[in-house]
Amino acid sequence: MKVYLVGAGPGDPKLLTLRAHEVLHEADVVLTDQLAPRAALEGLDAEIIDVGKVGGGEQVPQEETNRLLLEHAQAGRTVVRFKGGDPFVFGRGGEEAQLLIEHGIPFEVVPGVTAGIAAPAAAGIPVTQRGMALGVAFVTGRDSEGNPPDLDALARFPGTLVFYMGVRGLADIAAGLIAAGRPGDQAAAIVERGTLPGQRVVRATLATIADAAEREGIRAPAITVIGDVAVLELV
Amino acid sequence: MKVYLVGAGPGDPKLLTLRAHEVLHEADVVLTDQLAPRAALEGLDAEIIDVGKVGGGEQVPQEETNRLLLEHAQAGRTVVRFKGGDPFVFGRGGEEAQLLIEHGIPFEVVPGVTAGIAAPAAAGIPVTQRGMALGVAFVTGRDSEGNPPDLDALARFPGTLVFYMGVRGLADIAAGLIAAGRPGDQAAAIVERGTLPGQRVVRATLATIADAAEREGIRAPAITVIGDVAVLELV
Repeated sequence: MKVYLVGAGPGDPKLLTLRAHEVLHEADVVLTDQLAPRAALEGLDAEIIDVGKVGGGEQVPQEETNRLLLEHAQAGRTVVRFKGGDPFVFGRGGEEAQLLIEHGIPFEVVPGVTAGIAAPAAAGIPVTQRGMALGVAFVTGRDSEGNPPDLDALARFPGTLVFYMGVRGLADIAAGLIAAGRPGDQAAAIVERGTLPGQRVVRATLATIADAAEREGIRAPAITVIGDVAVLELV
Repeated sequence: MKVYLVGAGPGDPKLLTLRAHEVLHEADVVLTDQLAPRAALEGLDAEIIDVGKVGGGEQVPQEETNRLLLEHAQAGRTVVRFKGGDPFVFGRGGEEAQLLIEHGIPFEVVPGVTAGIAAPAAAGIPVTQRGMALGVAFVTGRDSEGNPPDLDALARFPGTLVFYMGVRGLADIAAGLIAAGRPGDQAAAIVERGTLPGQRVVRATLATIADAAEREGIRAPAITVIGDVAVLELV
């Protein structure tokens, strides 16, 4: 009985860690979300259970994922919870770890390459760069209650802003950042399906990025980069 | 002739990506820094050149690393630049990519697991957590001119602050964050040698973390986490 909370990386199956690859091959059961690469699960001698958006429809509720985690672990199985990116970066891995601790189930966290770094990199954008960005902040478009982040504070962040989101809500966020003092002509980019076949990149400014992304029909999964580094194209 | 700018991950050699492992085995030459795991280079049929702090002494200047990158690539070799963490997160990988573009040398960036996520995770700290941290910011203690970051702006960041630094300068940064309004009783932790044998964790508050770390003799490499999530110990 053991659970591995495993980061699956940004999408390219080659960007799994060696440890992730190893524990997948020990698994009896894999609970996977829709952002984790399916190719990494081919040929495994494990039951694969989809707990992402099943069949393009609704997201499986976290409570159901929790129930499955407990059920399979308590039956003595080795369970991999396979999550896009890193389990502790917007991955709800912390909540799953708390659940496992409450139930006395041994677990290991296997970190992963987060899309907030790797998707921009695949577009040639380093999220930090000497002289251009002293740091990088990873944020989401909405909190767990659906409220937008504190845009006044984010506007002042002395570095690159990386939103784990695409088009929906972006116009409001961009307008709020500009209202709070972030320059409208600062560079911005959206990377759709970063590191995956069919990757697309839209480059614009903070003032124009939402329109540009909508015009191009950008869809999830996407990562939005706001900051001077977004002009770079180091590929 | 090809250069790979490869993230070596936080220290544990199992946290290399499959792609990093693959390109290391194609390399004629590996230019490695001192944070990249040596164990990952054992058994390679490649010349290994140390461009970190050689013999515990001075850091090899970036200009010398650049010279070696060009020299070996232009001699037709496959070169891996093997860097702790991720090449585009405080890794100077962007500058190396620019150099390679200027000289018409083909290259590929292989992202890695950054220590700012993995070292806290190894201590049981998720850098984001629903209800506790809406986001996470990665920053350094000094910019390329040696100036401290904008602590007023960082203090207001609505989430976890992760400093890629240990004790040196921490007292001033903590005092500056408190002066700018970050609560002195907010949780803080330092993770020394995260994911490596001999990992140590010091937990305190923002007001006490610098003293606590000094008392424990914390040394580089270390990662400092400031935020409510630093009370968590999900291991």
